[in-house]
Amino acid sequence: MKTVGILGGGQLARMMVLAGTPLGARFVVLDPAADACASHVAPMVNGGFDDAPALEEFASRADVATFDFENVPAASADSLLQRVPVYPNPRALGVAQDRLAEKTLFGELDIPVAPFAVVDNRTQLDEAIARVGTPCILKTRRLGYDGKGQFRLRSAGDADAAWDALGAQASRVGLILEGFVDFERELSVVAVRDRHGGFRSWPLTENWHVDGVLSASLAPANVTDALAEQATSHARKVADALDYIGVFALELFCRDGELLANEMAPRVHNSGHWTIEGAETSQFHNHLRAVLGLPLGSTRMLGHACMLNWLGSMPSPEAVLAEPSGHWHDYGKAAREGRKVGHATLRTDSVDELACALERVGEALGRQEQVAPVVARLRETDAASEATNG
Amino acid sequence: MKTVGILGGGQLARMMVLAGTPLGARFVVLDPAADACASHVAPMVNGGFDDAPALEEFASRADVATFDFENVPAASADSLLQRVPVYPNPRALGVAQDRLAEKTLFGELDIPVAPFAVVDNRTQLDEAIARVGTPCILKTRRLGYDGKGQFRLRSAGDADAAWDALGAQASRVGLILEGFVDFERELSVVAVRDRHGGFRSWPLTENWHVDGVLSASLAPANVTDALAEQATSHARKVADALDYIGVFALELFCRDGELLANEMAPRVHNSGHWTIEGAETSQFHNHLRAVLGLPLGSTRMLGHACMLNWLGSMPSPEAVLAEPSGHWHDYGKAAREGRKVGHATLRTDSVDELACALERVGEALGRQEQVAPVVARLRETDAASEATNG
Repeated sequence: MKTVGILGGGQLARMMVLAGTPLGARFVVLDPAADACASHVAPMVNGGFDDAPALEEFASRADVATFDFENVPAASADSLLQRVPVYPNPRALGVAQDRLAEKTLFGELDIPVAPFAVVDNRTQLDEAIARVGTPCILKTRRLGYDGKGQFRLRSAGDADAAWDALGAQASRVGLILEGFVDFERELSVVAVRDRHGGFRSWPLTENWHVDGVLSASLAPANVTDALAEQATSHARKVADALDYIGVFALELFCRDGELLANEMAPRVHNSGHWTIEGAETSQFHNHLRAVLGLPLGSTRMLGHACMLNWLGSMPSPEAVLAEPSGHWHDYGKAAREGRKVGHATLRTDSVDELACALERVGEALGRQEQVAPVVARLRETDAASEATNG
Repeated sequence: MKTVGILGGGQLARMMVLAGTPLGARFVVLDPAADACASHVAPMVNGGFDDAPALEEFASRADVATFDFENVPAASADSLLQRVPVYPNPRALGVAQDRLAEKTLFGELDIPVAPFAVVDNRTQLDEAIARVGTPCILKTRRLGYDGKGQFRLRSAGDADAAWDALGAQASRVGLILEGFVDFERELSVVAVRDRHGGFRSWPLTENWHVDGVLSASLAPANVTDALAEQATSHARKVADALDYIGVFALELFCRDGELLANEMAPRVHNSGHWTIEGAETSQFHNHLRAVLGLPLGSTRMLGHACMLNWLGSMPSPEAVLAEPSGHWHDYGKAAREGRKVGHATLRTDSVDELACALERVGEALGRQEQVAPVVARLRETDAASEATNG
């Protein structure tokens, strides 16, 4: 029986443990927080990701290692690799950690991206704005997530404010200026690659963010087959180029029917949580299968699924659990403003049922705004499908 | 966040923890075995079910208690009830623990059973054989499971041998003689009842036993709607009579199109393991929802499902995991002859796909005998359905 070490003990680690235990795996997590929520279901080494003795103990207890959190220092991942196999490999992690390396790779693979420019100092910011155009977004190259470490510029006049906000981080994590994409949709491909290069992707997912944080995901996204195939092809090229093993997500913008790659997440991903109930094999199951060297499972959908993120504190579960299609995920975390504390998934056989269930849940929880864009998309899909069939 | 105490730390407790964690529950298990497999995912109090200090510690850490193992001494369940709510209630547990009380209840509820007679001594055994007829089975009234504590009599001449095997237990756990039912099918209803009397049952399951131990389960069972409704009605009557809260199974024999109740199991049940992938809400999820006072989830099937039990030691997982419909459950237990160490579930959209997948798995694992009766039933079902539709 193999023990899987997980760097990071948050909800992703927790859901990995729940999915991987039936495969006969044991787990150990490393996390700096004593109350990390994966520690409810797995033994934990309590220490930082750069804490050598903690890493040493963690490595000694694991047969293979993976990540719940990608912003682990590259040196830690490398030192771990000298003790146990690490999936995904630290090089893939390194590329995904760095917006510049990531966008450079996308370019090499002929995957379109928004215009971008490196910014190392205040002068370069002006040059970058001139080249990229406005509106645009100044971002930290590394350690950003959920919209943190970003500043949006409407015009060149915002350069000083942007530099005030992020300039101090230029020397530590680097900065990059990216053209703002006035997208129609945000999409993600969640995919998995095994040790032999086998590749599978779940149906394309449409995502809605609020203040940079995922609010809702809908699968399958209502896009043309050609667009879905192109998204999958992009994901496969990235995975092959990085010799990636495990689950990852490629986030894409869709503008005028064209896809632009935004970024990749080298781990199971929030936009893939719907796969727990909505797919034959979930992202968590397949990630563990890949990490353990087992055959990958089918990624086919079971109907239609929508995931709603709960931020800050958990709503009351009754409204969701009373839905025949309702499934609940409480991460066991203390409430804190903006924190991802849980999610719900509604899974139905038809688009119409899903829209109705979402409306009922939105109404019952006073979260009409959260469900509205998803319901609108589903109604659009349903109308188009009726027009086609009628 | 509530902590659910589970008496017993075997695979049922383990699967309860995996299902209940997303509801936000914490767990603690009580088990006499230091390596009980639920302890991989939940804190454990290591002690016997009649160990007062262990029970005391267990109770102090739980907000509500339930069972993985029903043969807990009634006195322990009662003492626990003075500290925390216990579901199912100890009276229901007491009835289900005792074949005589159980059969008496079935009789009171007009649920047909095979003829039976109490046996307290050797003389009563002869009288019982005369009344019940042969073939028949001498069983312990309490503490029997998986075919243990049973002796089959082909004729009255086997009475001495039966008494030699089980007579010594007459004074401790009581004996009962039951008429042998030459059944065509073994069926089970897995059902759940909540704190408000709400009742749901999963589709009827057909089961195959080998040497008294469950070998395979198939759902939905291919029976008439009338038979399925009758089975569900029996289960509901039993649950209502006992004010039962949580999941239970009612095992039934089908002979000449008639149902005879065999026994009930006051807990999640091996014949309901297919619900993890094969139903909208699994037996483990709904048991925890009932125990926590949350709304019950839909018990509708997602396609067709077959569960295969792994006894003794785990086969290699590859053949099952390579099936698009294949799901794996390794309980993390050491190999031991006859021990339930895991199971696999195959879940498909059609009867034909399920039969083909079972044949491939049976062949790959050299377990053709285990899958054969299920495949035969599926082929029968498929042929009947084609005859009807064609």
